[in-house]
Amino acid sequence: MAKKVSALATASAEVRGHAPERHRTLIPVQNTIGGLGEFTLITRVSAQFPTTDDVILGPGDDAAIVAAPDGRTVATTDMLVEGRHFRREWSSARDVGHRAVAQNFADIAAMGARPTTLLIGFAAPHDLPVEWAEEFTAGVRDECAVAGGTVVGGDMVGSDTLTLGITALGDLGGADPVRRNGARPGDVVACTGPLGLSAAGLALLEQGIDGPALCLSEHRRPSPPYTAGVEAARLGATAMLDISDGLVQDLGHVARASAVDIDLDSMSLRPDPELLEAVRVLGTEPGREQEVARDLMLTGGEDHALAATFPPGAELPGHWYTVGRVEQVSEEAQEGTVGDVTVDGGRPPSGGWSHFDRG
Amino acid sequence: MAKKVSALATASAEVRGHAPERHRTLIPVQNTIGGLGEFTLITRVSAQFPTTDDVILGPGDDAAIVAAPDGRTVATTDMLVEGRHFRREWSSARDVGHRAVAQNFADIAAMGARPTTLLIGFAAPHDLPVEWAEEFTAGVRDECAVAGGTVVGGDMVGSDTLTLGITALGDLGGADPVRRNGARPGDVVACTGPLGLSAAGLALLEQGIDGPALCLSEHRRPSPPYTAGVEAARLGATAMLDISDGLVQDLGHVARASAVDIDLDSMSLRPDPELLEAVRVLGTEPGREQEVARDLMLTGGEDHALAATFPPGAELPGHWYTVGRVEQVSEEAQEGTVGDVTVDGGRPPSGGWSHFDRG
Repeated sequence: MAKKVSALATASAEVRGHAPERHRTLIPVQNTIGGLGEFTLITRVSAQFPTTDDVILGPGDDAAIVAAPDGRTVATTDMLVEGRHFRREWSSARDVGHRAVAQNFADIAAMGARPTTLLIGFAAPHDLPVEWAEEFTAGVRDECAVAGGTVVGGDMVGSDTLTLGITALGDLGGADPVRRNGARPGDVVACTGPLGLSAAGLALLEQGIDGPALCLSEHRRPSPPYTAGVEAARLGATAMLDISDGLVQDLGHVARASAVDIDLDSMSLRPDPELLEAVRVLGTEPGREQEVARDLMLTGGEDHALAATFPPGAELPGHWYTVGRVEQVSEEAQEGTVGDVTVDGGRPPSGGWSHFDRG
Repeated sequence: MAKKVSALATASAEVRGHAPERHRTLIPVQNTIGGLGEFTLITRVSAQFPTTDDVILGPGDDAAIVAAPDGRTVATTDMLVEGRHFRREWSSARDVGHRAVAQNFADIAAMGARPTTLLIGFAAPHDLPVEWAEEFTAGVRDECAVAGGTVVGGDMVGSDTLTLGITALGDLGGADPVRRNGARPGDVVACTGPLGLSAAGLALLEQGIDGPALCLSEHRRPSPPYTAGVEAARLGATAMLDISDGLVQDLGHVARASAVDIDLDSMSLRPDPELLEAVRVLGTEPGREQEVARDLMLTGGEDHALAATFPPGAELPGHWYTVGRVEQVSEEAQEGTVGDVTVDGGRPPSGGWSHFDRG
C-alpha cells in the first residue's frame, strides 16, 4: 500500500541499538511483520485494493494521484492508537480496519462529499502477527467497498505502540460544502444513522457482557450513512457534522460556529430496542431504561451518525429523523452567550457513561 | 490544527481506566498537553498556519478543502515515530517539525509536483510539554514557508509513543507526473541536493560527536530541493524519486519499475568537505576518507535529495549533477535479470554505515 516506505527494518536500523524490543508473544518470527519484512507485506497488502475511477496513480510511487474532477479535494486525517481508540482484546483486526475507514469517510460525508480514497500509515511492533495486518487490510478493503472508496497509498513503520494514521479524501461533485457555520434560527436539526449504540457497546465490553450484538457490532464497526452526506447537501442542509464525541457535544460545534443556540427534544429520540436491552443488562434501575438510553443517544460518541440543520420547510426522507431546532437568538444576547445546546430547554445530561460508572 | 478531534481527554476516556499513564518527568501538569487540553492547544496551533491560494477551507470543520486546479491531487503519507525516526535527545521539537514537513513534501516534489498542503496527526503522551508541541508547530510552519505549503487539518490524540502521521498534498499544475517507471536505456541519471550528509550526521550523533555542523543539521532538518521537482518535469525527466533509503537502494526502485539497469559512476560523486571531515572524525582510516564518504553518498538515506533520469541530450542546470547512466539491456536478458544498480560496473557498497559500526 505504500510507496517510498520507511521500511520496518530500516526504521529500526535508523536508530540502531536503541529501538526497544518487545517479546510479548511466542509467535514464530517468520509469522510476524518484522520477520516477513515490510516490502513483502506491502506488496501483499497493496494487491488487496482495487483501482477505481478516482485513482489516477495508485500505490508504488513517491505519491499517489487522485482525481479531483471539480478542482477541489476534501481531506481529513485521524490517528487511531491501540489502548486508546481500540483494544485488540475487544476488536478483531478486521473490526479495526472497518472502523478506521468508517470514522474517516464519515468526516468526508459530513462535508457533503463523496468518499474517494485513503492513505494509511501503519506503525506497528515488529512482533505483530502478519495475520493481524492482513485481517486489518481485509477490513479496510471491505469497508472501502461499502463506502465506494479505495486505498491509494500508505506507509509502514515500526513502533512500540500499534498506531494507524488514516487520511481520507473526497469529492464534492461540484456542490458547495456543508460546513458547521451555516445553521440559522428556525432550522430543524435532524440525524441519520444510529446514536448511542457504540457507547453502549463499549460499556458492555468494559463489563465483559457479550450482548446485545448490535451494540457491540456498532462499537466495533460503526456504520456511517455515507451517501446521506451528499443527500443532505442536495436537500439544502445549512450545517452538518458527524457524531464522534456525542450529539450534544458535537452540535455545540455547530451552535458556536453558527452563533446560534440549539434545543434538542429528548422525546424525539427513539432508543433502538437493542439499546434499551443494553442499558438493562448494564444494570440500569428498572423504569429508567428509556431515560438512560436517551442520555446515551445524547452523549455517546463514535456512532458516526450524521447530524445536519435544514431550513424549516425541508422535506426529509424517512431515514432523517428530526431531533431539535435551531433557536431564535434574542436581540439582547451578548457575544459569547450563544452557542448553547439544551435538551428540552434545559441543561443536557453530562454523559450517558456516568450511569454505569463502577467506582 | 484539527477539526473534529478525538480529544486527548476523550481519547483516554474512551478506554477508561485502561490507558497506561506515564510519569517520566516533573513538568507541572498545566504545562503538559494533557493539562492544557487538546482544544486549547489545537486553537493555538491552528493560528500558526497562514492560509494560501491552495486553501479553500482550512482547519476547524470535519474536513479541509484544498484546491486542485488541474483536476488532480498528488497525495503521500509518512509516519514518524519517536525512537525510530527521531530522538528527542538528538533533535529539537523544531527540528522534528522541519523534518516531518521536508520528507513528505520531498515526496510531492519527486512526482514533479508543487507542495501545497499538509494534514498532521499528532499522537503524544499526556505529559509531553506544551512547549514541545508549540516548537514542533513552529518548525512545521517554517518549513512550510520554505516549501510554499501550509497546514489545513490534523488530529491530536493521546499515545504512549510520540508519533506523527503526516499527509502531504501537491499540485501537478497541468504537467504529467514523473513516475519511477519511465527510465530508458541511454538516459543520464542526475541528482540535486546533498547526499550522505544526513547519514553522517546520524553516525556523529550516535557517537556523541557534535560536528561538523552541516552533517548534524542535514540530519535534523533535511533541505530537499522542493522546486527542482517541477523543474525536472519541465526538463523532460523520464523518472524521478527522492532519496530516503540511499541512492543505490532507491534507484533500484527506478531500475526495477523501468526494467532497466543503472550504473553509477563513483568518481562523479564529489563529497562535501564537511562530509569528508565527518568521516575523518568518525574514525576512518587515513587515506580512505574519499572512499568512505562516497559510500555514504551511495547508501546513506534521509537526505531527501532528488534523483532523476533524463534523455541523453538534456541540458541540465548546474545544481543537477550527473551520477550515472541507464544501461542498454541486452537482448538476451531474461525477465527478472534487469533492475540492477551497479557502481563503476560492479557490486555497490553494502552500506556506508558499516564503516562506523562499533561491535
